[in-house]
Amino acid sequence: MFSRAFLKKLARKENVPFSYLEKKLKEGRVIIPLNSKKEIKGIVAIGEGLKVKINTNIGTSTDIADLKEEVDKLKTAINTGTDTVMDLSIGENIDKIRKTIVKNSSVPVGTVPIYEAAQTAEKRRGSIDKIKLDDILDTIKEQAIDGVDFFTIHAGILKNTIDILNENKRVGGIVSRGGAIIARWMYVNRKENPLYEHFDDILDIAKKYRITISLGDALRPGAIADSTDRLQLSELFVLSTLIKKCQARGVQVMVEGPGHIRLDEIAMNVILQKKMCSKAPFYILGPLPTDIASGYDHITSAIGGAIAAMQGADFLCVVTPAEHLRHPSAEDIKEGIIASRIAAHSVDLLRFKDEREKDNTLSYYRAHRKWENIFKLTIDKEKAKRYRKSAKVTSEDVCTMCGQFCSLKIIDKCHLLK
Amino acid sequence: MFSRAFLKKLARKENVPFSYLEKKLKEGRVIIPLNSKKEIKGIVAIGEGLKVKINTNIGTSTDIADLKEEVDKLKTAINTGTDTVMDLSIGENIDKIRKTIVKNSSVPVGTVPIYEAAQTAEKRRGSIDKIKLDDILDTIKEQAIDGVDFFTIHAGILKNTIDILNENKRVGGIVSRGGAIIARWMYVNRKENPLYEHFDDILDIAKKYRITISLGDALRPGAIADSTDRLQLSELFVLSTLIKKCQARGVQVMVEGPGHIRLDEIAMNVILQKKMCSKAPFYILGPLPTDIASGYDHITSAIGGAIAAMQGADFLCVVTPAEHLRHPSAEDIKEGIIASRIAAHSVDLLRFKDEREKDNTLSYYRAHRKWENIFKLTIDKEKAKRYRKSAKVTSEDVCTMCGQFCSLKIIDKCHLLK
Repeated sequence: MFSRAFLKKLARKENVPFSYLEKKLKEGRVIIPLNSKKEIKGIVAIGEGLKVKINTNIGTSTDIADLKEEVDKLKTAINTGTDTVMDLSIGENIDKIRKTIVKNSSVPVGTVPIYEAAQTAEKRRGSIDKIKLDDILDTIKEQAIDGVDFFTIHAGILKNTIDILNENKRVGGIVSRGGAIIARWMYVNRKENPLYEHFDDILDIAKKYRITISLGDALRPGAIADSTDRLQLSELFVLSTLIKKCQARGVQVMVEGPGHIRLDEIAMNVILQKKMCSKAPFYILGPLPTDIASGYDHITSAIGGAIAAMQGADFLCVVTPAEHLRHPSAEDIKEGIIASRIAAHSVDLLRFKDEREKDNTLSYYRAHRKWENIFKLTIDKEKAKRYRKSAKVTSEDVCTMCGQFCSLKIIDKCHLLK
Repeated sequence: MFSRAFLKKLARKENVPFSYLEKKLKEGRVIIPLNSKKEIKGIVAIGEGLKVKINTNIGTSTDIADLKEEVDKLKTAINTGTDTVMDLSIGENIDKIRKTIVKNSSVPVGTVPIYEAAQTAEKRRGSIDKIKLDDILDTIKEQAIDGVDFFTIHAGILKNTIDILNENKRVGGIVSRGGAIIARWMYVNRKENPLYEHFDDILDIAKKYRITISLGDALRPGAIADSTDRLQLSELFVLSTLIKKCQARGVQVMVEGPGHIRLDEIAMNVILQKKMCSKAPFYILGPLPTDIASGYDHITSAIGGAIAAMQGADFLCVVTPAEHLRHPSAEDIKEGIIASRIAAHSVDLLRFKDEREKDNTLSYYRAHRKWENIFKLTIDKEKAKRYRKSAKVTSEDVCTMCGQFCSLKIIDKCHLLK
């Protein structure tokens, strides 16, 4: 699927042996989302034993749709260190926005094709309830030709899921847009999920363009009350069978996971997902261990993401402080990415010497109060500098927190430091 | 030590049976920091089986010392939901600031008396190396009379610790101010730690005024490279013996813990500390699972704090975004407290129905897009409102994230919601 030279280069970038990358790729425990029609600078591998990766969602909504703003967000996301982006546009001119994002992105781009299919149905037939199979397959084909690298496909929510949902009504309902579109379509039309029924057709397109499938979690809990409920697990069960279909067909696949999850169920969720899904890469949306922190859900998500990643989750989806409140700004996206990078790095440093070295070197300079060297290694150099400069120090070798009672300065002459 | 009526009232506030509170208090697994000379509105119990509590550090430094600013921070801290404050002032007029903070605080106030003793020695004898025993005991007595509720005492760092530190030089050195003062004093004077040698005298004062002792972690790691090292453990061992001394003397005691700790060592640290310290309440400073996030250490600390609290840590010390960079502003303190409250609440909701109900009720309103009800239950109502209002919605029942493609609106007519 990929050339030996390509994989060798990527293994070096990932800081793992070539043989490891090759083996894990073959086993489906590592994926490389990259459309066969494309070459990009920011190629990335995601999965077992690799550094934790992060994805950032951008894209318009029906309320706010400004192409320039989305391109700005793309730039912010890449500059802040995202590994991939997803264009989740749902406003007007989805195709134009996607083409522009793909063209301008140096990192892999993912989409959720059912959004555009729903838009098409609404335009042509007046309602998202009137999506036809061709809307879906045509959209997928067009997006594949455009150079999208991975698709979220919500094929795990089935007609009988609606019955379960009716019997076990949820507090949080369905919080996946794609999931809600499909659930409603099935409810209104009394038919099976077309993404499930025609999964092989989708795989044909994915295979042809080397698109990675991200099995969407239409039923991720959107409230702590729904954490690891029957619905979530029923979908996981279906996804576990689809994973095998993808792998048998030679299509790369990862699986998406929750959501709002109780703190004491996060580790278990990762173990269960990995176990059921043949250890395919696990792409998590959160998890958020509380519902009450709107405005701070980048923090909530950093808590959940760090625990999940420590347990083996491979790919964290950025949650911004705007989550649950508004369409995110570029600044929201930056804050969200930094929170996710903190979670990812906290895990990476346990596994990779080069990552640990960043902490060790920074701390060495911190102990010796070499501020310029500290800033260079800090996750957000500009913010750290701004904070330090905002308060006037009485001497250059301390900060205003302790002033002359700086613990490090106090012991400086005691020869206790490395 | 406390009247039955007092404990009954507190048990109701803590949402636990009176008999439970009484038993745990007797076992030393729960403490109630409250100077016998005082009555305050915000009494609080800390320890096993209770809601996770948080402390906020305020106080001046030698670089920034403004009484009004510190009183403002006290108000901000209480309004944002801190359970206790510590006045860590180290600038001029420590006594005046302390008296003012104690007078104005409706929650328990802690201090680190060695700071004032060091200030006194510097003023009287020109150097913090010239602290005398009387400086320490007089300070402790004065602060007790002033109404301080708990004292951090760094009695676990011993003369032989300096030898270990010399043989096993650390990357991060000593990052506890009190610890650095004592370490330097022992290094320069070649004498044993006076707080350790005269611990019984300190207990006499604590006993008389019903002060709670917080056994300070002078040797908490200040860098991931030093996580759970020999020094940290040598101090923990000493603290485990001092716990018994306090309890035998009828003095309430808790124990402070690290610091910068690897993500995969946080749970173990809590288990170890609880095991060694007779399950006394565990007061943690962080833990921070990475060193590179200055400017965002409220997030780093929320990750570590949530994991620690889930494992049984009882009391979280707020870390602000200013940590490692500057003396914190009131705004920094607010951000830090909210991050700690998110960590604490994520654990509390697992154990307390009334806490879980907050999430469930908010999520119910979220699913039905009742914004005003959502705001009422959100951790920072003002920020949530501000975010929502910053972007113009096309209809009141959605937010600009998805607009008309709001998943909850899509399924609204499908009768799938509670």
